[in-house]
Amino acid sequence: KPQKERQRLPVVPQGIERDDFLKALAELKELLGDGNVEINDKPLRDGWYMEHPNTHDMMTILDEEEFVASAVVYPGSTEEVQQVVLWANKHRVPIFPISMGRNLGYGGAAPRVRGSVTVDLGRRMNKILDINAEDYTCLVEPGVSFYALYEALKERGLEEHMWIDTPDLGGGSVIGNTVDRGVGYTPYGDHWACHSGLEVVLPTGEVIRTGMGALPNNNTWQAFPYGFGPYSDGIFSQSNFGIVTKMGMTLMPNPGGYESFMYTFPNDDDLAQLIDIIRPLRISNILENVAQVRHVTQYIAASGHPRSKFYTGPGPVPQDVIRAAAAETPVGDHAWAYYGMAYGPAHIRAHKLALIDREFRRIPGARRIDPATLPADEYFWSRDRVARGVPDIHELRWVNWAPNGAHIAFSPVSPIRGADARRLFALGRRLHDKYGIDFFPAFCVGLREMHLIVEIVFDRDDAANKAAALACLRDLVDEAAREGYGEYRTHLVLMDQVAGTYSWNDGALMKFNERLKDALDPNGILAPGRCGIWPRRYRGRGWEM
Amino acid sequence: KPQKERQRLPVVPQGIERDDFLKALAELKELLGDGNVEINDKPLRDGWYMEHPNTHDMMTILDEEEFVASAVVYPGSTEEVQQVVLWANKHRVPIFPISMGRNLGYGGAAPRVRGSVTVDLGRRMNKILDINAEDYTCLVEPGVSFYALYEALKERGLEEHMWIDTPDLGGGSVIGNTVDRGVGYTPYGDHWACHSGLEVVLPTGEVIRTGMGALPNNNTWQAFPYGFGPYSDGIFSQSNFGIVTKMGMTLMPNPGGYESFMYTFPNDDDLAQLIDIIRPLRISNILENVAQVRHVTQYIAASGHPRSKFYTGPGPVPQDVIRAAAAETPVGDHAWAYYGMAYGPAHIRAHKLALIDREFRRIPGARRIDPATLPADEYFWSRDRVARGVPDIHELRWVNWAPNGAHIAFSPVSPIRGADARRLFALGRRLHDKYGIDFFPAFCVGLREMHLIVEIVFDRDDAANKAAALACLRDLVDEAAREGYGEYRTHLVLMDQVAGTYSWNDGALMKFNERLKDALDPNGILAPGRCGIWPRRYRGRGWEM
Ligand SMILES: Cc1cc2nc3c(=O)[nH]c(=O)nc-3n(C[C@H](O)[C@H](O)[C@H](O)COP(=O)(O)OP(=O)(O)OC[C@H]3O[C@@H](n4cnc5c(N)ncnc54)[C@H](O)[C@@H]3O)c2cc1C
Ligand SMILES: Cc1cc2nc3c(=O)[nH]c(=O)nc-3n(C[C@H](O)[C@H](O)[C@H](O)COP(=O)(O)OP(=O)(O)OC[C@H]3O[C@@H](n4cnc5c(N)ncnc54)[C@H](O)[C@@H]3O)c2cc1C
Repeated sequence: KPQKERQRLPVVPQGIERDDFLKALAELKELLGDGNVEINDKPLRDGWYMEHPNTHDMMTILDEEEFVASAVVYPGSTEEVQQVVLWANKHRVPIFPISMGRNLGYGGAAPRVRGSVTVDLGRRMNKILDINAEDYTCLVEPGVSFYALYEALKERGLEEHMWIDTPDLGGGSVIGNTVDRGVGYTPYGDHWACHSGLEVVLPTGEVIRTGMGALPNNNTWQAFPYGFGPYSDGIFSQSNFGIVTKMGMTLMPNPGGYESFMYTFPNDDDLAQLIDIIRPLRISNILENVAQVRHVTQYIAASGHPRSKFYTGPGPVPQDVIRAAAAETPVGDHAWAYYGMAYGPAHIRAHKLALIDREFRRIPGARRIDPATLPADEYFWSRDRVARGVPDIHELRWVNWAPNGAHIAFSPVSPIRGADARRLFALGRRLHDKYGIDFFPAFCVGLREMHLIVEIVFDRDDAANKAAALACLRDLVDEAAREGYGEYRTHLVLMDQVAGTYSWNDGALMKFNERLKDALDPNGILAPGRCGIWPRRYRGRGWEM
Repeated sequence: KPQKERQRLPVVPQGIERDDFLKALAELKELLGDGNVEINDKPLRDGWYMEHPNTHDMMTILDEEEFVASAVVYPGSTEEVQQVVLWANKHRVPIFPISMGRNLGYGGAAPRVRGSVTVDLGRRMNKILDINAEDYTCLVEPGVSFYALYEALKERGLEEHMWIDTPDLGGGSVIGNTVDRGVGYTPYGDHWACHSGLEVVLPTGEVIRTGMGALPNNNTWQAFPYGFGPYSDGIFSQSNFGIVTKMGMTLMPNPGGYESFMYTFPNDDDLAQLIDIIRPLRISNILENVAQVRHVTQYIAASGHPRSKFYTGPGPVPQDVIRAAAAETPVGDHAWAYYGMAYGPAHIRAHKLALIDREFRRIPGARRIDPATLPADEYFWSRDRVARGVPDIHELRWVNWAPNGAHIAFSPVSPIRGADARRLFALGRRLHDKYGIDFFPAFCVGLREMHLIVEIVFDRDDAANKAAALACLRDLVDEAAREGYGEYRTHLVLMDQVAGTYSWNDGALMKFNERLKDALDPNGILAPGRCGIWPRRYRGRGWEM
């Protein structure tokens, strides 16, 4: 958008006068250097994934000005992060930390409170502080992406020795993804469970190191996560209780071999049986990674072609059109596809693959797809890369489904049970039909639970389209909660609603979170509203949405 | 001790007059019923493991009256726990929750502050609320022991379907052990990592459920640990921030076979090479369980014979005496023994065991012990049971080493590296020699770290013996910390000292813990001093020891 279209430049956070705010920013420039504080008075450009903005949500479902930063600041060290925090307390300015700001589908780089000062940690704090090839660990700063970590292993000749784990898109930050409790697809896919040790700047400016990091001269910060006394790392994930400036991460030893496999199943109704087959195999680690069970509609979208290539009518593309398109692909017609990987030497893989094959074939019409029949740009190969920790961005392709394509995720958690999968699938289908939206369900199967990830793709320049997507999401969240399903993570716009579904005992957990928030952040400066947690200064003033 | 020897009956906690305290206890009796509040005015009996006291540390290293309860209360429900907490706030009485109080080596059932009212949760809250054979999970109350959980699986015919994980002694509480971050020896040995979902009564009386437990009607509380928003479980482990009244635990699917193995190594100096061999095998999960690398002295003690059978002189038993005794055993002479288990079907185990054998035999003199040569009461078979989740108490035997045997543990964490093992072994040997104490080191090898567990066995009726043990421990903690090693867990008497070693950045972590403590427990009633965390009412008043 050209600059003149923006109404107020810059946006001034509530509770401070424009002049005082500009003076405060000038003060911040003196602390961090002129070039490290940018007032957000420029046009809001969405760019694309690799050149994403840090001022707003490039895939916003509201107006872009809704979740917009007033300024962006680039600290270069933990000490400078402390200075920013003290500055924010002094001037009562809300700040919002991002590592890289590629949290697409969940709000991108945008702050929850309009006019917050975004603390872009990644720009200058992007060092890999340690890679330990003996312990299979590393220590990183917020600006280290999955790509960068992977490249560093290569540079040191260690990529055959140990693997990283990457989410579907490799451009995110190891810290940013992990503190939002993101997932990847090797056996180290539960990033939170795989981290070891944090350095955190508290909202009042002190800096702590958790776990063994609190012991001077230790050599175990990345080897043993717990340390002594309360294990506090968890409260710094999906919260607004601190700014993580360093994090340890464990790395996976090369398993001595790997082999991707793919099965397809012919009917929508096969889902329940498939999920029940998966459960014991997954819990027993015969299925070893966070596999994806994907519906054919998203598979067609992952070809990267726009929806209009297949169908130009209103409402969801009819399933027979989708199925006909699938029949034309190298994979062939199907309703569901399972993408997995077996790890280890050949004879060990053979053992597991034989068990899997026997079980999967109990479903009539199950087909194992021979990878040798799949061309190099098939989606399968991107899953193959990701499941062995090689960063990728193929997954972005289905965002092209709509013109000016953007997306937002609905991600409820359920047990790995057929009955639950069927219920969630029916719920999603019904509500997508109601709002005329194409339905992209993919079940990501963790160890004892699965995240259903439903991506709603919308045209970010079409207000009606955005409104329908949001209404659909709000219904999904509420109806799922009524049936006992809650989201594992969510977009800024849904945070209050999702947090509200975790309401047991009259909202006891949120009251507890608020107690912690007020103790740790008495001035309420750090990411107010994130994950539904509002500091005292904001509560009861209509900030929820 | 006969009752007349006790000086004051009952002990009255500081800050409240004797009469007011007795009145308060009467009030508590009205709330919970007469039989559920016991004034501790009886003789302090130590009993033995299976009939342990809940009034004091049956293995105390100080005078028994030092860590002694004024009364014991038995709530029967979460609501009654809430009542106890509100009562404690009203009267400013310190309370100390235990699940079963078998925390031997770390303080047993004793409270940190003399005269605290012990909240013995396990006596009446001992139900297994759920066993889910599909998800491989359970939900338990504090009084459920590893034995009880195992028996419940048997009763339901599920013991072939899934396994529990048990520490060396099976009489402890699943909750008590897990919140103290204890470990067992199957691949599910990291109990904290294997739990899913807590119900917690806060120090101000509110009750929360963590993770998915906060979502009404959920069916994922035990399947997905994190939920939405801050993951707060960790702050309820090794702390005094809440009372856990329910906990979910994951269970291990039967791996389809298992096989214990044992290797011995001839020289003390083989340790470093052995540990370096173990590291990559362990991190790659070729070595799959928390194995023990045990020194021969403790092996001899585990025979259950008193030290006097082998040696009656002062100071540590000479190593040649120990080695001669070992030569007489079915295992034969050795310095170190490795106890491990391979899991899975026979051909999968064979693959792993062959790799292990090749690596272990790189150490000159390494011997694989054929289990068929070992009699039924060999220590090996107790490790075998424990490594497949069958509760046991054989491990108690080495406590007989001293008359009136008691013990206390020193448990530093290090990376799995030979150099660290050598350093810790030398440190331990030197300080044990200095104080004339037999040295029992066992390395418990986790995934990327090991806990060295050094058990000091002492005569609880011998003041000089106790004093030497304590002095040795204090030196061990300080000298280890100076070299960068910190304890993963500790005894009541050492909590302040150990917490003090986690001092990075001027004790920033403890200040943070104190901030949380004051926010959650403004009256400082819950387990003051536990893990070194003192509430505001106690700080700066000389409570530390
Ligand atoms: C097509 C597509 C596929 C995707 N697939 C996956 C997937 O497979 N798995 C997955 O997990 N995600 C996935 N995502 C979502 C997202 O892209 C990734 O999770 C990404 O890694 C998050 O962005 P980031 O790493 O730059 O984090 P950031 O945007 O930097 O951080 C995310 C949030 O965490 C908080 N935060 C970040 N850093 C800090 C810090 N240092 N201290 C305190 N708080 C902080 C902030 O609130 C921030 O908004 C996908 C997105 C798209 C578009
Ligand atoms: C020979 C021997 C071998 C041992 N081997 C092992 C071993 O292999 N692994 C191991 O982990 N331990 C071991 N131990 C130590 C100990 O016996 C076990 O850890 C035991 O399980 C702890 O006792 P408990 O379960 O009864 O816990 P409790 O004594 O009930 O609890 C321990 C502490 O945790 C806190 N706590 C307990 N319940 C709650 C609650 N509900 N809410 C809040 N706080 C609570 C309290 O402060 C309490 O003092 C061993 C001990 C001996 C003597």
